[in-house]
Amino acid sequence: MLRLAPKEHLRFSQATNFEAVYGGGESNVAVSLANYGVPVDFVTRLPKNDIGQCAMMEMRKRGVGVDKIVYGGERLGIYFLETGAVSRGSKVVYDRAHSAISQIEPGMIDWRSVFKDVAWFHWTGITPAISQGAADACLEAVKIADDMGITISTDLNYRAKLWTYCDEAHREKIMAELTSYCDIVLGNEEDAHKHFGIHPEGLDVHKDGDNLRAEAFLSVCKQMMERFPKAKKVITTLRGSVSASHNTWAGVLYDGEKLHKTTQYQITHIVDRVGGGDSFMGGLIYGLLKYPKDDQNALDFAVAASCLKHTIKGDANLVTAAEVEKLMGGDASGRVAR
Amino acid sequence: MLRLAPKEHLRFSQATNFEAVYGGGESNVAVSLANYGVPVDFVTRLPKNDIGQCAMMEMRKRGVGVDKIVYGGERLGIYFLETGAVSRGSKVVYDRAHSAISQIEPGMIDWRSVFKDVAWFHWTGITPAISQGAADACLEAVKIADDMGITISTDLNYRAKLWTYCDEAHREKIMAELTSYCDIVLGNEEDAHKHFGIHPEGLDVHKDGDNLRAEAFLSVCKQMMERFPKAKKVITTLRGSVSASHNTWAGVLYDGEKLHKTTQYQITHIVDRVGGGDSFMGGLIYGLLKYPKDDQNALDFAVAASCLKHTIKGDANLVTAAEVEKLMGGDASGRVAR
Amino acid sequence: MLRLAPKEHLRFSQATNFEAVYGGGESNVAVSLANYGVPVDFVTRLPKNDIGQCAMMEMRKRGVGVDKIVYGGERLGIYFLETGAVSRGSKVVYDRAHSAISQIEPGMIDWRSVFKDVAWFHWTGITPAISQGAADACLEAVKIADDMGITISTDLNYRAKLWTYCDEAHREKIMAELTSYCDIVLGNEEDAHKHFGIHPEGLDVHKDGDNLRAEAFLSVCKQMMERFPKAKKVITTLRGSVSASHNTWAGVLYDGEKLHKTTQYQITHIVDRVGGGDSFMGGLIYGLLKYPKDDQNALDFAVAASCLKHTIKGDANLVTAAEVEKLMGGDASGRVAR
Amino acid sequence: MLRLAPKEHLRFSQATNFEAVYGGGESNVAVSLANYGVPVDFVTRLPKNDIGQCAMMEMRKRGVGVDKIVYGGERLGIYFLETGAVSRGSKVVYDRAHSAISQIEPGMIDWRSVFKDVAWFHWTGITPAISQGAADACLEAVKIADDMGITISTDLNYRAKLWTYCDEAHREKIMAELTSYCDIVLGNEEDAHKHFGIHPEGLDVHKDGDNLRAEAFLSVCKQMMERFPKAKKVITTLRGSVSASHNTWAGVLYDGEKLHKTTQYQITHIVDRVGGGDSFMGGLIYGLLKYPKDDQNALDFAVAASCLKHTIKGDANLVTAAEVEKLMGGDASGRVAR
Amino acid sequence: MLRLAPKEHLRFSQATNFEAVYGGGESNVAVSLANYGVPVDFVTRLPKNDIGQCAMMEMRKRGVGVDKIVYGGERLGIYFLETGAVSRGSKVVYDRAHSAISQIEPGMIDWRSVFKDVAWFHWTGITPAISQGAADACLEAVKIADDMGITISTDLNYRAKLWTYCDEAHREKIMAELTSYCDIVLGNEEDAHKHFGIHPEGLDVHKDGDNLRAEAFLSVCKQMMERFPKAKKVITTLRGSVSASHNTWAGVLYDGEKLHKTTQYQITHIVDRVGGGDSFMGGLIYGLLKYPKDDQNALDFAVAASCLKHTIKGDANLVTAAEVEKLMGGDASGRVAR
Amino acid sequence: MLRLAPKEHLRFSQATNFEAVYGGGESNVAVSLANYGVPVDFVTRLPKNDIGQCAMMEMRKRGVGVDKIVYGGERLGIYFLETGAVSRGSKVVYDRAHSAISQIEPGMIDWRSVFKDVAWFHWTGITPAISQGAADACLEAVKIADDMGITISTDLNYRAKLWTYCDEAHREKIMAELTSYCDIVLGNEEDAHKHFGIHPEGLDVHKDGDNLRAEAFLSVCKQMMERFPKAKKVITTLRGSVSASHNTWAGVLYDGEKLHKTTQYQITHIVDRVGGGDSFMGGLIYGLLKYPKDDQNALDFAVAASCLKHTIKGDANLVTAAEVEKLMGGDASGRVAR
Repeated sequence: MLRLAPKEHLRFSQATNFEAVYGGGESNVAVSLANYGVPVDFVTRLPKNDIGQCAMMEMRKRGVGVDKIVYGGERLGIYFLETGAVSRGSKVVYDRAHSAISQIEPGMIDWRSVFKDVAWFHWTGITPAISQGAADACLEAVKIADDMGITISTDLNYRAKLWTYCDEAHREKIMAELTSYCDIVLGNEEDAHKHFGIHPEGLDVHKDGDNLRAEAFLSVCKQMMERFPKAKKVITTLRGSVSASHNTWAGVLYDGEKLHKTTQYQITHIVDRVGGGDSFMGGLIYGLLKYPKDDQNALDFAVAASCLKHTIKGDANLVTAAEVEKLMGGDASGRVAR
Repeated sequence: MLRLAPKEHLRFSQATNFEAVYGGGESNVAVSLANYGVPVDFVTRLPKNDIGQCAMMEMRKRGVGVDKIVYGGERLGIYFLETGAVSRGSKVVYDRAHSAISQIEPGMIDWRSVFKDVAWFHWTGITPAISQGAADACLEAVKIADDMGITISTDLNYRAKLWTYCDEAHREKIMAELTSYCDIVLGNEEDAHKHFGIHPEGLDVHKDGDNLRAEAFLSVCKQMMERFPKAKKVITTLRGSVSASHNTWAGVLYDGEKLHKTTQYQITHIVDRVGGGDSFMGGLIYGLLKYPKDDQNALDFAVAASCLKHTIKGDANLVTAAEVEKLMGGDASGRVAR
Repeated sequence: MLRLAPKEHLRFSQATNFEAVYGGGESNVAVSLANYGVPVDFVTRLPKNDIGQCAMMEMRKRGVGVDKIVYGGERLGIYFLETGAVSRGSKVVYDRAHSAISQIEPGMIDWRSVFKDVAWFHWTGITPAISQGAADACLEAVKIADDMGITISTDLNYRAKLWTYCDEAHREKIMAELTSYCDIVLGNEEDAHKHFGIHPEGLDVHKDGDNLRAEAFLSVCKQMMERFPKAKKVITTLRGSVSASHNTWAGVLYDGEKLHKTTQYQITHIVDRVGGGDSFMGGLIYGLLKYPKDDQNALDFAVAASCLKHTIKGDANLVTAAEVEKLMGGDASGRVAR
Repeated sequence: MLRLAPKEHLRFSQATNFEAVYGGGESNVAVSLANYGVPVDFVTRLPKNDIGQCAMMEMRKRGVGVDKIVYGGERLGIYFLETGAVSRGSKVVYDRAHSAISQIEPGMIDWRSVFKDVAWFHWTGITPAISQGAADACLEAVKIADDMGITISTDLNYRAKLWTYCDEAHREKIMAELTSYCDIVLGNEEDAHKHFGIHPEGLDVHKDGDNLRAEAFLSVCKQMMERFPKAKKVITTLRGSVSASHNTWAGVLYDGEKLHKTTQYQITHIVDRVGGGDSFMGGLIYGLLKYPKDDQNALDFAVAASCLKHTIKGDANLVTAAEVEKLMGGDASGRVAR
Repeated sequence: MLRLAPKEHLRFSQATNFEAVYGGGESNVAVSLANYGVPVDFVTRLPKNDIGQCAMMEMRKRGVGVDKIVYGGERLGIYFLETGAVSRGSKVVYDRAHSAISQIEPGMIDWRSVFKDVAWFHWTGITPAISQGAADACLEAVKIADDMGITISTDLNYRAKLWTYCDEAHREKIMAELTSYCDIVLGNEEDAHKHFGIHPEGLDVHKDGDNLRAEAFLSVCKQMMERFPKAKKVITTLRGSVSASHNTWAGVLYDGEKLHKTTQYQITHIVDRVGGGDSFMGGLIYGLLKYPKDDQNALDFAVAASCLKHTIKGDANLVTAAEVEKLMGGDASGRVAR
Repeated sequence: MLRLAPKEHLRFSQATNFEAVYGGGESNVAVSLANYGVPVDFVTRLPKNDIGQCAMMEMRKRGVGVDKIVYGGERLGIYFLETGAVSRGSKVVYDRAHSAISQIEPGMIDWRSVFKDVAWFHWTGITPAISQGAADACLEAVKIADDMGITISTDLNYRAKLWTYCDEAHREKIMAELTSYCDIVLGNEEDAHKHFGIHPEGLDVHKDGDNLRAEAFLSVCKQMMERFPKAKKVITTLRGSVSASHNTWAGVLYDGEKLHKTTQYQITHIVDRVGGGDSFMGGLIYGLLKYPKDDQNALDFAVAASCLKHTIKGDANLVTAAEVEKLMGGDASGRVAR
């Protein structure tokens, strides 16, 4: 997608130009992984025009493999972003309908060849939300990946505005089938509720804030795992919105036995919070690959990575593993490196 | 429409931001007229979001009436513009499909109320090209305008890339019916050929350049008037592309009796040539209103106005009638006004 | 006025360009009201040159009526703004002397015709401060408005630097006469003291911060109402300057019987605090119109509106009523709207 | 003065920021001389605020002496510049009334001390045009300079819009007295005509363009020298406005015996023509100092210098003597220096 | 290299920021080839810091292979570019000493592995000019490429300012040995003269301009081929500097039998002429690969490609083969592509 | 030095231009002093090219004397700055090797003439760190200054990355000799430890934060004074890094008898922290000159000055003495000055 944003905190009606960055859920994850040195390909469908070409070139610049992208369709999806401050939230105007990816159909991508020598496949709930064809192609991919023994992860990412082509029942059916193939599931209570009708149970309301939310999430995780037995880990982020300029940030991971929690970060001067969840996912995949037996470390990496994302302009998280590890190690002092 | 252009002469793949201006064929004509002091309304359909709102506000800023605009639909059409130089032509990437205006249907606009106390209605060949609904709504408007005795003008504006919803025969049928209601027709040989199969006849090939083209155009005019007896004037612009940075510019008007020609301008340092035709149309309508019995003057105004447009950034022609008249009067010296 | 400001936090001597916005006390109020959907006209005097024209066009862009503006005089007033941070305050250099509005005289504006079908007239203490002519024209307007039964509001807005054409006694006389016609009076202790020699009485110094200031203000209100019996409501804002980047913000309204107070907002990351008072006034007028029998609601709207203003670049408050109401309703979380 | 200009070729109403440069007739000459390595002081009156300070700092940056500047008054003069192209001329909106320099009075500057060890004094016709006080101070300076045996030069620079404080007869009286003290007089036919009622005589109209103008100028020179016997050289520039983007440029100098002419330059891609005359004057003073017995060389330097000015953004001519000499030597090829 | 340039035509002393592009002789050729769809690797040495990383990423963005780059050394070379206009030439300030590439030594790059499956190797005279180590590494590469049967091309590119580490005799020895391995030699009379002491012979001075220069070049070619018998083609560009804004452009190729010439292009509005020679070389290599038996076509492609380069900002030529072929086919009209 | 920084918080790889400011340890101190009205000269060696010229002009703009600068050498040192936020620290990439100043040698500057009528000489530990020649020239200066009875101050400024030309022992020898001539020594525990092997002794670890650090520093001061008996005052800054966006700031001065401490400032919204130490030094020199008998006042001035620096973009502290005194006086409210 092409993101177009007035500079600084200008409102749309004040803008005489838009800053242009290219991004999107899955591509943001891909850029994160490339930055950490993980070989990664981004598979999508782009329009065969200059704008599609620009999007591909930015991926390529970051070291993401672009040879498996297919070309066709009408347009690159666009979203307009107005950056808020304090009590004025940021605002997104979507213009992503009729994009090349929304017009994808099963068979357009040769998944068996794409997945050759691949160990991990990640998809997000955005893709099946945009069209039946995209949902079908996603399912096609997930089934083949499963068949080829590839680890599958998802970010459920419920977005009410996107699910317009079908009714609720059909939506749940699609998401449930897709999720049933996943090993790693990122999602919060709202995702679980909207997609699968799962609610937290038996909460102790005497607990406060993040603890309460962690508790609630544990209940959700258990129900999720019951419903999707292939899932080995269920994870969520815990964002606290003090204001548009100041958020708190933490994460929780349930591995079927234990609920791992992280420290809570104070992000007191947010530069850009869009892509926060994607940067978490990118960090989590890297963490799980790097610390295969240490979920706490993997989760800590994910949270530290996405904490840093809030200081980076644009959708993608342009930090190195070393930078994340420094923060993970407890150094949040932001001293000058010289 | 929203136009997004990399600054200066940057290519798309070099751009990290886009300059944003709002424009479009009919709205450019409207802005021209508002600048000349003519009361004018822009009638269109805009999406009910911030981007549609911005487009409306820019019209309002220029003094164009915006109260007759209707709201609805998915998106504002977009086009991306890369500005060329010398032998590298400018490049346009359209992203205007599925726009609010393309989803218009007859009945959405209450034309009788829109046309109350109105003397002139202008439409362009862009509108019927974008969808059957738009063509139908345009025809609805033209018929009511005709019925209410309003002067009707058109800019035929053939754009091959846009006419995708129907075949050639259907296209000719649509355009012929629409044109049959027009009093004033702006179009060149290509428009006449593509829309109506009209070719210039019996050309004296010993004549050169603009003279030859004027001759050819006369033949076209006569055939046009035969086919569309309501048309009282047929007009074309004569652009010579020396390079992307240097064009020549003139105009020809046939009033059924005489072929009026203008002087040829050398536009040696083009700032922005997009909207050149629209600025000509804006100037022509103003000219015909101001000099009702002097077609030469009206045409001279139109050519001088559009000549100045090439020095203005953006789609619309931001000049006053006084500025046009100064150039019309022969002062092309570009001296500092202080 | 034209406001010229170096970008971001640059000092004047670092700037190679200035960001240009058009604004001013009364016009900021007008833009607020237009944004809330209230039909509003801005009545002023602008110079008949391109810069005056630009100011008018920006008003028109926002939907403010501009047909009652008169043209003439030498120049548009200018002020230069340097935006501070933390312990460095913002800095304003005025260059507003000899402006078109300062050279206005009674008779230049046909107030009876301006006020036709008008329900509310708002003026600020800036206008009588700039010249005897402006004071006279203001008085002319206020008298006619009063005579025509129009609600009159004022923002006393004492600015020592502006009152240069007369002595203190004359200033008090002018302001007292003008204020005597007002129904709604916005002003703080300093305004009351400087303009009318009114001091708070009998304060309980054991109360802290905002409470103490509210108390003090109550005493001021009572004296004000005694002196200006037509005034039905006296209002003030309570700004606490933690630093140039962080202010607290609240408001107090006395209706002759009860002192209404609002919650105190923490504006922790100020984008632009200029125009804060004007946005309060704009919100207050709207609030009083919308909630005619609920002063608390009206005041809450005013404070929430002006709280949001601090996140908007430029003098005017570019927010919708819905956005204000969301904050009024307690949602200061600044979450992304998508 | 502070010059505020929309970027590139934008019209005023399109600008959301203005590029800011500081300049003015005499200061431009001073900067030229400093660039050539001539010790020079700029004597003026600036307002005691940040904007006046910025103007001084830019002079100091260029190496112009600023210690003799006096401070006081209300404001720094401003002018707004819109940069034209091709047939659209640039546009200037003055906002220089009530500037600090316009409120100068004799006695404010201690000229005897300013002129200590000074060899040359330059003034322009702009200064006496802005107010009686400025004219008086200028006369005061000129008389003292004359008394101290300093060479005096002037650029007559007639500007109709500025001479508003007195009638024509008074204007001629002022200018005649001031000019009577000058050794070097730069001015064209219009200056001679408007200021002194001098017309060219007995022209041979069979001569073309620049030759005709040179001829006409010779007649003017002779009359000027008769009227102002102290003048040793009368000089003019010959600008041909092909368009706002393309000018021709040459110069003529009469030394009482011979009319020296220069080659004519084609300035085909003007970057900024404001300050062209000032850069000519700066080059001329340097030329006359460097080539005291070779007026042709001095004139050639002046024309080449001002030719280069048209490629420099801003009012002042930021070129070195070596760069001018390269062009003077015939190398107009504009090859890359690496 | 990192190129830092003030925006538009600003002089260095006016700049408060520099536009940053990454480029350099060989990398510009590599980008050209990647744009034409030729698989290409850029082999160099970059410093292991963020700036070196940025340079690599820009190459990668354009599709140039970056896996063979080695890392080490102190810094990335920089040059500052001031863009001239009309009679003011552009100006380059080099800051490339001590760059990572200048500190390269033979053995640092494993050329046999680099050249695996490679068909063509290109180097320029810039590389041996910067240090003995760079010259040695270049010779090492050339010898191995020759041994592996790879086609070798060079752009002689004499730059007096760079050859500082050795005397003239040593320089000639280095260049002669390097050139002796080349199949394709690009260079002009100055290169031939400075590097090898070769002068044109027996010129017919009655011929004009480009014809005369082509004649002179033929004489040079013959001497070059005699001295470097492996060279199969000698080529030069013919640039005519009308001004910094307007150049003429053509090319000549001698294949040992025939002197091929191209049409002469008028580049009337230069956007950026830096990298013109590199874009010619990139076009020539592509042309020779695509039209292996048609040197005229290859040369025409090279000239058209580099003609377009003058309309592109930055060092590299960001055009497609289709765009070059359109110009080659005679369409220099610069019409809008929509 | 030239500092090149991506705008706002962009990472290097996102930047398409760099904001350019000129600065450096000693020059930042010089600019501070010039801003406070102290006559000051900056003595350095700059390359004789446009970039060196620009650096000089910026000094001159600020009122720093530049006549004692010598010219020669290869290049101006550069550093690239990426501005962090929250937990992402700013990042500096040095490119200062081989700068003109690093190639200085004793004898290049005529110190006796430079020091004529001079009362104070300041040098920093950066200078001897960059090359043996620079260390020698610095020692030459210090000895002559001492001989001429000039007050000498230093900022020890240990930078591990710079000391590359010699081993540790040699470094200590150089710094010890240089420091032995100083009257005023600014440095922290790390400087004392790295340069002279001095450690804090006998700390009471029950004290917290700044108190503990002050205690530790006292021990260091005493040892320093024992080792360098000429030193009359030893000073340090106390920075607390809450995050890259929020620091605390205070200072401590030991005069041989008493340890003076300042209040601690909260710098909650840092604009630019580079140059913080230099601005402290600039403030301290001014403070010691202005309050010769009141070290507490001098120190308070230094801390308030450098506190304000954190709100200023660029290396140098562009504030007036009045602005510092306002903050010193306790007004940190950052109210608008109008």
